[in-house]
Amino acid sequence: MSNNNFYCVIMAGGTGRRFWPYSRKALPKQFLDFFGSGQTLIQQTYERYKQIILPDNIYISTHKDYKDLVLELLPEVKESQLILEEEHRNTAPAIAYASYMIQKVNPDATVIIAPSDNMVLNLEGFKQAVWRGMEFASCSDKLLVMGIKPTYPETGYGYIQISEDSEGDFRKIKTFIEKPAKEFAEVFVQSNEFYWNSGIFIWHINTIMKAFHEMMSDVCPRVEGGRPDFSSCPNSSFDTSIMEKADNVYVQPCDFGWADIGTWGTLHDVLPKDENRNVVIDSNTMLYGCKNNLIMMPEGKLAVIQDLEGYLVVEKDNALLICKKDDQTAIRKFVNDVEMRFGEKYS
Amino acid sequence: MSNNNFYCVIMAGGTGRRFWPYSRKALPKQFLDFFGSGQTLIQQTYERYKQIILPDNIYISTHKDYKDLVLELLPEVKESQLILEEEHRNTAPAIAYASYMIQKVNPDATVIIAPSDNMVLNLEGFKQAVWRGMEFASCSDKLLVMGIKPTYPETGYGYIQISEDSEGDFRKIKTFIEKPAKEFAEVFVQSNEFYWNSGIFIWHINTIMKAFHEMMSDVCPRVEGGRPDFSSCPNSSFDTSIMEKADNVYVQPCDFGWADIGTWGTLHDVLPKDENRNVVIDSNTMLYGCKNNLIMMPEGKLAVIQDLEGYLVVEKDNALLICKKDDQTAIRKFVNDVEMRFGEKYS
Repeated sequence: MSNNNFYCVIMAGGTGRRFWPYSRKALPKQFLDFFGSGQTLIQQTYERYKQIILPDNIYISTHKDYKDLVLELLPEVKESQLILEEEHRNTAPAIAYASYMIQKVNPDATVIIAPSDNMVLNLEGFKQAVWRGMEFASCSDKLLVMGIKPTYPETGYGYIQISEDSEGDFRKIKTFIEKPAKEFAEVFVQSNEFYWNSGIFIWHINTIMKAFHEMMSDVCPRVEGGRPDFSSCPNSSFDTSIMEKADNVYVQPCDFGWADIGTWGTLHDVLPKDENRNVVIDSNTMLYGCKNNLIMMPEGKLAVIQDLEGYLVVEKDNALLICKKDDQTAIRKFVNDVEMRFGEKYS
Repeated sequence: MSNNNFYCVIMAGGTGRRFWPYSRKALPKQFLDFFGSGQTLIQQTYERYKQIILPDNIYISTHKDYKDLVLELLPEVKESQLILEEEHRNTAPAIAYASYMIQKVNPDATVIIAPSDNMVLNLEGFKQAVWRGMEFASCSDKLLVMGIKPTYPETGYGYIQISEDSEGDFRKIKTFIEKPAKEFAEVFVQSNEFYWNSGIFIWHINTIMKAFHEMMSDVCPRVEGGRPDFSSCPNSSFDTSIMEKADNVYVQPCDFGWADIGTWGTLHDVLPKDENRNVVIDSNTMLYGCKNNLIMMPEGKLAVIQDLEGYLVVEKDNALLICKKDDQTAIRKFVNDVEMRFGEKYS
């Protein structure tokens, strides 16, 4: 399988605040080896797509501060394959800029947008799904999103509801649903109408450029042409600015053992647990009366913990975090407060 | 004030397990500077007694493994002033051996037994109390224990109940009470009959030797003579073997701002607290919804903690402990378990 017109953009610009203190501004999660596997998340992602997309056609979208890190972690990637943001402006400007750059290189490209923090268990199923999606998108004017058949009521993911309209296996979207409450997630899993939003998008380059020109016409002139002007771009998410507004979005139903390493809570959900639902990542621990926690300590450090339930205990370098595992928004606040008080020392 | 017959034995043989992981087998609490004051607890104790007892008459009872450490921390102390246990056998054999050694040096000695882990706030009051107690004991056949007027219902201390019998200010003991439940401690503080057991004892050397020969006659031959045989001594506490059995025990009521650094719980009780009763010892922390905790981190390390109540969070070197602050017995179990599993690596 190989097709000169198939391209991949790995999105690796995140600052990884949701995984503080394990990830830091200088080393966000995509550049970390979360599971002690010997490979960082971005390396795992690159290797996965390299089996489907020609290496020269794999681009990396990231912030300029991470340029050297990416080139070091992915030695096969040339500097010309980096699409660098001057400033963090969320995903919409980054995808607009990447699309413009790829269109310049190949006006008949079909592109897959790949988050750099996914886990995939069934690689064969994944490869077949990507190939099928790209073949569909290459000769269609649809914006495709891969929907993952949910296996449990995860509240840390976004969901997609499908409609009756279809083109082959591909189903027209009814609506996007942001991270739902537990009781809704349970209903979604029961029904056959809902899928997890993987954040993996596929389209022909003309389709996405048309969408940007229609829905974010202010951003286009800022990323097209000689030098992009990120500082004047709005800070907007691609999902809300384009995908939720467009009327040509289709879902590709997939089922290849997927997880998004989006928050500590989702990480806890997908990793193996002890009999008390504790997840211990690569750490020496002795737990007494502990339930449903996630624990991650530096190498060689022992954590003895008594009577915690539903907590996160994460230490790395000069910082220790002990907080409610499922309070997703709290960590952002903590990191902001830490920066206010200590500057960059711990962030 | 000075008297050639007045002697002091500083008890510094403890292994400090109750303060794990801050204290370790190789460095028990008496050899640590708990409050960042620049002085370890044993140095503070030595300096305190040096103002009352001639330096040549201050002996240190400790385990042989701590010999070099003591000589380094207390450079004025000569090797001949060390009374070394070959093996840890609790306080009864240690005090018996120390008493025998001092009797050999001065058969008319009056001795004060001084724990190495006390805090004293009113040094003048303390000095006067020691002097008064030693003068009383020097010409009496009583075993004296300093009783501290309780200021709050501490459940981590032993209490002493006094009887009506008295000799001057010194009151005959009615009974020793081990660490009481909260409701009892509250009654004790209200009444005027109860004192904290300071663990500071005073007696003429003949009085204590007589007590040992009467109540622990098996131990005497093992510590008297050329070379003591600690391995065949029973592992027994001086309080239960002698003080609780003797019928000549008197209490010296004292009130000089005293605290025993016996457990994390008592340390929390005596140290300054924030508005939510958190004690933070010399650490960078950011606390959210935290109440009644004790936190101690290594220098330069930040702890961000959310929604903990009544916990201990202590990290030192290669170990982190998170446990219920007031579960006094749990830490011993943890340390035993850690040794069973990891050997000496963390203990």
